[in-house]
Amino acid sequence: MIAPIRWAGDRLVLLDQRRLPLEEKEQECADWRQVADAIRTLAVRGAPAIGVAAAFGVALAARESRATVFDDFLADLEVALKGLAATRPTAVNLFWALERMRRVCLEHHALSPDQLNARLLAEALAIQDEDVAANRAMGEHGARLVPDRARILTHCNTGALATAGYGTALGVVRAAHSRGRLDLLWVNETRPVLQGARLTAWECAKEGIPHRVISDVAAAALMARGQVDLVITGADRIAANGDTANKIGTYGLAVLANHHGIPFYVAAPFSTIDPALASGALIPIEERDASEVRRVGSQLIAPEASPVYNPAFDVTPAALITAIITERGVYRPPFAFSR
Amino acid sequence: MIAPIRWAGDRLVLLDQRRLPLEEKEQECADWRQVADAIRTLAVRGAPAIGVAAAFGVALAARESRATVFDDFLADLEVALKGLAATRPTAVNLFWALERMRRVCLEHHALSPDQLNARLLAEALAIQDEDVAANRAMGEHGARLVPDRARILTHCNTGALATAGYGTALGVVRAAHSRGRLDLLWVNETRPVLQGARLTAWECAKEGIPHRVISDVAAAALMARGQVDLVITGADRIAANGDTANKIGTYGLAVLANHHGIPFYVAAPFSTIDPALASGALIPIEERDASEVRRVGSQLIAPEASPVYNPAFDVTPAALITAIITERGVYRPPFAFSR
Repeated sequence: MIAPIRWAGDRLVLLDQRRLPLEEKEQECADWRQVADAIRTLAVRGAPAIGVAAAFGVALAARESRATVFDDFLADLEVALKGLAATRPTAVNLFWALERMRRVCLEHHALSPDQLNARLLAEALAIQDEDVAANRAMGEHGARLVPDRARILTHCNTGALATAGYGTALGVVRAAHSRGRLDLLWVNETRPVLQGARLTAWECAKEGIPHRVISDVAAAALMARGQVDLVITGADRIAANGDTANKIGTYGLAVLANHHGIPFYVAAPFSTIDPALASGALIPIEERDASEVRRVGSQLIAPEASPVYNPAFDVTPAALITAIITERGVYRPPFAFSR
Repeated sequence: MIAPIRWAGDRLVLLDQRRLPLEEKEQECADWRQVADAIRTLAVRGAPAIGVAAAFGVALAARESRATVFDDFLADLEVALKGLAATRPTAVNLFWALERMRRVCLEHHALSPDQLNARLLAEALAIQDEDVAANRAMGEHGARLVPDRARILTHCNTGALATAGYGTALGVVRAAHSRGRLDLLWVNETRPVLQGARLTAWECAKEGIPHRVISDVAAAALMARGQVDLVITGADRIAANGDTANKIGTYGLAVLANHHGIPFYVAAPFSTIDPALASGALIPIEERDASEVRRVGSQLIAPEASPVYNPAFDVTPAALITAIITERGVYRPPFAFSR
C-alpha cells in the first residue's frame, strides 16, 4: 500500500510528490517549519493529506517546545498553528486538523508538557488512522454508485497520495476496481501541476488499475462520444449548501458532465465540509505562482514577457453535483450540511 | 509583420514553430519531402498555413521533376501530391490547396515543363497572398462583432503563424485591438502541444496585444466570473451543416460558452469549408503520438507505463456556434454551405 505520510519516531517522513513519477524519494521533516514548507511547496498536497501532515506538524511543534508550564507551551503551539495555517488557504481540512489539535491541547491543560507531547502525537496518529478508515468507508458507499464495466473520468490526484492512504475519489475507483466493476479510468493530466499525469497515473500503474492519461481538453470529446459513464473528483472545501471548491478544472468538468447527462460525483471526508460557509462564493481561492503555468519542470513553455493567471481551484455549484460521497454515506441535493 | 512561410527563390523557408518561443530559427525545405516532413512534425502547423506550405511543396516537386513531356511531369507531381496529402488528415485546407495546384497543372497541360514550373510557383504565391487578404477581410468582418473593452478568450494559435500572415481568429483579435476595442485576450495554453502558450502568447508579446496565459482548465472559472465576453477559435474543417473540427478542447469551450451565455465564434477562410461532408461526424480526426501528452519537451510528466489517448481535434456541433466568420462575411445558423 502507498503510504505517503509516515511518522518515524521523532520526525515526519513524506513521499516527496514533486519528484513523482520520476523518482520515489522521501523528505524528512524534523520540525514544524519543514512541514509548513512541505505543504507550501506541494511536497505533500491533497486536502486530507495536508490536514494529516499539519497535525503531525503540531505534534513536532509540541516536541520542539522547551516550555515547562502550560501557558508557555500553548504559546509555542500557537506560533506553529498560525504558521501552518498560513501555508494554503483553500482546503479546509488543514484548518480542521489544526483546530482539532488545538482543542486537544486546551482540553488537556492539566497535563505536563511531556504528557501533552505524547497526547498530541497520539491525536495526529488518530487523525491519520481515521482518514484511512473514512476513505475505505467512502469507497464502500461510492462503489455502489458505479455501474458494471464503468468508464470513469477523474481529475487531479485524490488517491493514497492525497490522503493518509487509499484515497477519496480514487478510493471509490479502487473499491469499484476491486469489485471488478471498472472498465477504464480516464486520468485528466490536470494542468498546471499535473497531479493526474504524475500522481494518479503513477498510483494506477503501480496497482494495475486500467487507465489512460488524457490532456484535460480531451474530456469533452470523450463525453460526446459516450466513453464516460461517470465523473468523480475530490474536494478541498464544501460549503453548507454543497457548493464545492476543488482543483481548477473541476467546475468545467461538472458543466460538461451536466451537458452530456453524465453523473458528477464528489468524494470527500466530512472534515472537508465547512458548514460555517453558506455558499461557495465565500470560499477563498488560492492564486499560485505564474511559473507553474509558464514552466513544466525546467522547461519554459510561454514567453517570459507573457502575463499569466493561475488560480489553483474553482467552485462547482451544488446544482451540478449528482451526489457527495462521505464516510457517513451518500448525500444528494438539496444539500444542507451542518456539523 | 510575422511571416512564417517565405519563398526564397529556389526553396521554401519556414519559421520553425517547434522551437518557439525559445528560439526563432528558420527551417529550409529544398524539396517536397522536406515540406511533408515539416507539416507532419509540426514545424509548420495551422490549417491555412499547412495549405500554403503544401502548395509550395507542389511547386518544389515541379522544380524537382526531370520530365520532358507532360504525362511524365504529371506523374512526378502526383507522387508529391499523394505524399503531401498523407501528412495530416483533419485540416481540409491541405487537400484544397493540393487539389487547386493539381487543377492548375491539368489546365495548363499545353505548357512545357519549365513553363508549368513557373505557373505552379505563381499559383502557390497566389494562394499565399490570397490567404493574407482573406485574413484581413475576416478581421474586418469579425471586429464588428467585438464589443468595446472586450475580454476575448481563444484557443490554440490562429495567428500569423497558423496562416500566411495576420491570422484567422487571432486576426479578428488583431483587428479589434487596432480599433481599440480589446481589453484583454485570454490565451488558453492548449495542451498537449501548447500552441497557445508557445505561439499565440509569442505573437501577442511581440505585437503588444494585451494578454494573459491560462491553463486550459481555468477557462470555465473565468466564464463563471463574467471575465469573458466572447470566445473565438479557428477551424480545421467545417462541414456543410456548420459542424466544425478544430484543435482538441474547442468543443468543451463551446459547451462552456453556451452554458454561460457567451458568444462562440469561429473564424476561418472559405477554403476550410468542406461542403462534401454533410456533418461533422464524417470529419476524420487525427490521433497523434502518446509522447505529446507524456512529455513536455524532454520532460517526462507521466509514467512510461501509463497508456495515453491523444486525439488532436474535436468536433463542435453547429448548434453551439454563434457565427462563422469568413472572408466572404459572417454566417449565422442554420448553416448550409456549398462551394
